[in-house]
Amino acid sequence: MKFTERLAIYQARVEAALDRWLPAATEKPESLNEAVRYAVFGGGKRVRPVLVYAGGEAFSAEPAALDGCACAVEMIHTYSLIHDDLPAMDDDDLRRGRPTCHKAYNEATAILAGDALQALAFQVLAEDPAITVPAERRMRMIGTLALAAGPTGMTGGQAIDLEAENRMLGLEELQDMHERKTGALIRASVELGALCSGSVDEQRFDKVSRYADCIGLAFQIHDDVLDIESDTETLGKPQGSDLERNKATYPNLLGLEGAKRAAREALDEALGHLADFGEEAGMLRQIALYIVERNN
Amino acid sequence: MKFTERLAIYQARVEAALDRWLPAATEKPESLNEAVRYAVFGGGKRVRPVLVYAGGEAFSAEPAALDGCACAVEMIHTYSLIHDDLPAMDDDDLRRGRPTCHKAYNEATAILAGDALQALAFQVLAEDPAITVPAERRMRMIGTLALAAGPTGMTGGQAIDLEAENRMLGLEELQDMHERKTGALIRASVELGALCSGSVDEQRFDKVSRYADCIGLAFQIHDDVLDIESDTETLGKPQGSDLERNKATYPNLLGLEGAKRAAREALDEALGHLADFGEEAGMLRQIALYIVERNN
Repeated sequence: MKFTERLAIYQARVEAALDRWLPAATEKPESLNEAVRYAVFGGGKRVRPVLVYAGGEAFSAEPAALDGCACAVEMIHTYSLIHDDLPAMDDDDLRRGRPTCHKAYNEATAILAGDALQALAFQVLAEDPAITVPAERRMRMIGTLALAAGPTGMTGGQAIDLEAENRMLGLEELQDMHERKTGALIRASVELGALCSGSVDEQRFDKVSRYADCIGLAFQIHDDVLDIESDTETLGKPQGSDLERNKATYPNLLGLEGAKRAAREALDEALGHLADFGEEAGMLRQIALYIVERNN
Repeated sequence: MKFTERLAIYQARVEAALDRWLPAATEKPESLNEAVRYAVFGGGKRVRPVLVYAGGEAFSAEPAALDGCACAVEMIHTYSLIHDDLPAMDDDDLRRGRPTCHKAYNEATAILAGDALQALAFQVLAEDPAITVPAERRMRMIGTLALAAGPTGMTGGQAIDLEAENRMLGLEELQDMHERKTGALIRASVELGALCSGSVDEQRFDKVSRYADCIGLAFQIHDDVLDIESDTETLGKPQGSDLERNKATYPNLLGLEGAKRAAREALDEALGHLADFGEEAGMLRQIALYIVERNN
């Protein structure tokens, strides 16, 4: 099967699973449940869920056992986008070409929609009957997600980003910020997928963790490159918005060509970590390529 | 030991446990970690943690096994206060006589501090080595907390509260709103405590659940009564602030005396659910009394 077909299958799987786990928009309180669904079903590429499925494939986990984890990471990701877009944060009006959640609803509802999604993510991991691993493993999965979402992970990264608003970060600081802000959840996605399988060899597990760190870096560098090279229509948000704000980015610090080279190096390193894997890691390899070749 | 002494012991226990679990204020990102600690160590009464310990006592759980759950419910509670106080929500400048988190720091940091606390709550439940129950039970605890925090619980209650801003709720709607907004977490607190014990009889578990629902109701009615009867200094927030906003409250709907009677009835019903328990439920009984007798 071609990569794009497999991608589409996994994207459809997680869409269906999200639809099952999210409260109906007709359920009370409608304002909240509508806003949650508006944000979740906003045309995201589902990169993190696909990483869950691909991480699971590498350890021969069944797709049905992976749906819950795919949902959970997408819920965390979506909540972070809702909160990052708020006026007090990045103050963005558009997300994937549509009004952001607080624009489509209001700020209070957007804050609550994010809060609700975080709780739902942990509920899915705790309650999904299709996750068939022993409860101890499941606890590790929940700990992994919580750590990726908390102050040492995603929220910490966003706080560092905010602290840096009035000064230019150095390369090391920029890397630390991104490792927390986006890298932690990307790594957690691959790890959760791997942890869903019947048996996990810790050495191989460590390999896919490192792979995930590398693609997280490549992802972020490529995002910065896209911000310069892509047009607003393709991107779904105002092009050049990072440059305008005089934010530290990889192209700002390394030059545009240097940034592209760094993304390619991170990609090569990612693939290197998969050297001991066979075809079962095919999807992980293809996602790595996809990440540095996508144009939005 | 007198109730107030026991209360002080449990309050001290959870303070120490929170201090252990929260990132140091000197840890990066300092802005976030400081704001989290500012909000958590703000002189709260720790009602929910004490309910965890009391619920545990009723099922002979060891205090050390309860610290993690006590932390987790207080983290969820504190995050909800931080977000509820935001300008887009209740827009409160004062909380327990001090500037609210977004006033002491800024809105973005306050949003992230709440987000971080929610993640930390689940991390504690997943990782605390002192929780000695089997992993299956622990999964149930995580599911219980997630459900209490999510759209069918706390965030849903806050959304209903916001939806009601421009109209007066009826008594049934008011009750539904409070059951979600505060009742769900109060019930979860007692349940988490009970679930920390070695063996849980489901019938007795059900009794303390119902007890918790009743004290949740009594708690909220008494809050509304205090809003009318107490002065601003004792309360730590502007007195009569609910009345001013023309919000539905129990005194508004039942009259002041009617509300006091309803609180007393809820208290009696709570105690009734503990009829089959002996001295092991002594703390639960005393908290029920404390809730309708406190003056702030």
